[in-house]
Amino acid sequence: MLKVISPEDALQVILDRFPPCSRRFDSVGIGNACGRVLNTDIVAVEFVPGYNRSTVDGYAVIASDTFGCTSASPALLTLAGEVLMGKAAKRRIVAGTCIAVSTGGDLPDGADAVVMQEYTEEYGNNLIGISVSVAPGNSIIFKGDDLMPGDKILAAGTLLAPHDIGILSALGYDKVGVRRRPVVGVISTGDELVATTSVPQRGQVRDVNTPMIAAAIRSFGAVVKRFGIIEDDKAALQMTLAQAVDECDIVLISGGSSAGTRDVTARVIENLGALLFHGIAMKPGKPTILGDISGKPVFGLPGHPVAAYFVTELFVRPLIDQLMGYPQKRRTVAARICEAVSSNHGRAEYIAVVLEDDDKVARPIRGKSGLIASLANSDGYICIPRDLEGLSKDAEVSVILWA
Amino acid sequence: MLKVISPEDALQVILDRFPPCSRRFDSVGIGNACGRVLNTDIVAVEFVPGYNRSTVDGYAVIASDTFGCTSASPALLTLAGEVLMGKAAKRRIVAGTCIAVSTGGDLPDGADAVVMQEYTEEYGNNLIGISVSVAPGNSIIFKGDDLMPGDKILAAGTLLAPHDIGILSALGYDKVGVRRRPVVGVISTGDELVATTSVPQRGQVRDVNTPMIAAAIRSFGAVVKRFGIIEDDKAALQMTLAQAVDECDIVLISGGSSAGTRDVTARVIENLGALLFHGIAMKPGKPTILGDISGKPVFGLPGHPVAAYFVTELFVRPLIDQLMGYPQKRRTVAARICEAVSSNHGRAEYIAVVLEDDDKVARPIRGKSGLIASLANSDGYICIPRDLEGLSKDAEVSVILWA
Repeated sequence: MLKVISPEDALQVILDRFPPCSRRFDSVGIGNACGRVLNTDIVAVEFVPGYNRSTVDGYAVIASDTFGCTSASPALLTLAGEVLMGKAAKRRIVAGTCIAVSTGGDLPDGADAVVMQEYTEEYGNNLIGISVSVAPGNSIIFKGDDLMPGDKILAAGTLLAPHDIGILSALGYDKVGVRRRPVVGVISTGDELVATTSVPQRGQVRDVNTPMIAAAIRSFGAVVKRFGIIEDDKAALQMTLAQAVDECDIVLISGGSSAGTRDVTARVIENLGALLFHGIAMKPGKPTILGDISGKPVFGLPGHPVAAYFVTELFVRPLIDQLMGYPQKRRTVAARICEAVSSNHGRAEYIAVVLEDDDKVARPIRGKSGLIASLANSDGYICIPRDLEGLSKDAEVSVILWA
Repeated sequence: MLKVISPEDALQVILDRFPPCSRRFDSVGIGNACGRVLNTDIVAVEFVPGYNRSTVDGYAVIASDTFGCTSASPALLTLAGEVLMGKAAKRRIVAGTCIAVSTGGDLPDGADAVVMQEYTEEYGNNLIGISVSVAPGNSIIFKGDDLMPGDKILAAGTLLAPHDIGILSALGYDKVGVRRRPVVGVISTGDELVATTSVPQRGQVRDVNTPMIAAAIRSFGAVVKRFGIIEDDKAALQMTLAQAVDECDIVLISGGSSAGTRDVTARVIENLGALLFHGIAMKPGKPTILGDISGKPVFGLPGHPVAAYFVTELFVRPLIDQLMGYPQKRRTVAARICEAVSSNHGRAEYIAVVLEDDDKVARPIRGKSGLIASLANSDGYICIPRDLEGLSKDAEVSVILWA
């Protein structure tokens, strides 16, 4: 009962079956909100700024007092005081007077413009010469120019950038509701696996997939919960998987390489829930399993590290993006491939590439799919669809960047 | 003594004066190393894999025993045992025999190929029929195929991706030396500023710059240390600045908007060290200050939030990238601007834009430079060089993305 499906169908099954849930959100301090996705619309409840402010260093005036004046015949206004930074203007301006004000300072009541310092001169005896005619509104930011109560300023689903943190600060938010980061449980199986810190004996290999996949999951913005290396035993795996499903939003079973491990994984998923597919028509990555246990996605990843890496990038990442409200867009670069690549497997083939010559040339990385070292220095990958027999040298390719 | 310089010269001064220091590195667990920059070359000290392994489920054989066999006339080999996953093969293979092995299993001594399960049949009495002729080396990954002792696998300066974490795991690293994250001190000044959580009175505004700049600094990968809001007082600022220089690698003085604040900042920098420039010929962002105190860069940022944001992106970020060993490259998108933009200020002008129509169209964001809300939904910015008088509608522009 091996249900093998195409990569496109596999992604559709995943995204359709496990939609995001807007009820799941965290309230985080704005110091930690950058890079998270807003859970609700942000609507201004106050005026920003809350009062009229000068945008220059100079003198607040009644504009009509300056009409017609020039450097040859300046208007003479009596200095009636100074607005201190951080304080409300103390007095109302009256015709024939001006009040000194700094950039950002409160505009005195009655004033309707500010004259820049550069166009003024102190004549002594509290007299200020104004050598330019200003119009009402000049050099002022008015109350509410930035935001008015009721303005919808940031929509639910916005991926918060640093400037959005500025906007939230201006509105007085110190906490904000953001989509919860999915918790991704990672279970390792495979009797041949030993921990990274162990020295493998003959027949053993270090567990490469778990730390690599964990790093990838964290780089996608999700949280990793590790369940250690479980022996290839149905009962042991079933117990750990049940616990992982209970505690996590997504579970990855990072498999050993043998068919035995894959069979155990598939049977345990069937025992606890439903097997959605078993095998994807792609290379590398064919022995990928997807299950649904209590409404939560459970992936059986291939044992070969390169295959596991591609499957995580191509299927787990879009699911995490969907759950977090991130855009699904990937960065791509158009380049020419520097050597012919054959492909006639009747399945989509994914090939890691190194970008060279200022990103104009893509060099495919050859090598047995299990060899993780082959990915060192790779910048991304290309996909050869299954209906194509390969690529000729210098063919234009779209390189999807890893990050 | 106002030294105004061009944006290009400003960046050059910054990058030349404050080079990276490779002596400063952290030893971090590989679980936290993704996204960090390697401080030293990584050289393999063992073989990966450490023994010959099967790449398929099947039977280990002496290849010459299969030569000439077909499904019509299979070779008959005696099954001499099974290699258990995680264990060394127990016995050496001899002519006329085969040993069952799983994908990733240890290849028995004497064997030089593996026949896939699909090309075999059990005949009973421990006899296995082999219906395909295999060549020596078929379906084997040899000891050291992935890495050999002495292989330089990752170079100092590599920005560690998840697949690099896989490589480090395969080599048994659980810690690795990475460039230290610079600590960036942020001091707020300006008598008009109140904390985000306060309700500003007339004449006051919430401190937008500090949380926004802090979020930007963190998104660049550095560490933020906040020194609070300091009043516009030379002695108070000087004391805090001296402490910040002592405790941090870079110090940003996130200024209030008034000329008074800027003057205090410049004088305090001169008291403690050297003023490198005072003013950049750009819009927004002109009132930017750079100083060197005890060999550490001190920036006086403009008070206007949008200006402060551009200066952080254009000058602080490249410095952080340099100190962390990150590439200086920025993501850009080629688009057409949807309306004419005039610019005749004799200085470079930076304009935030929103990308529309599947990123083909850039819509410039108008608005007074102080209005932080204008940056909501912006995707990046364009630069109009100072020798250009503006852009006509539909001109092609290179949009530099914020992230």
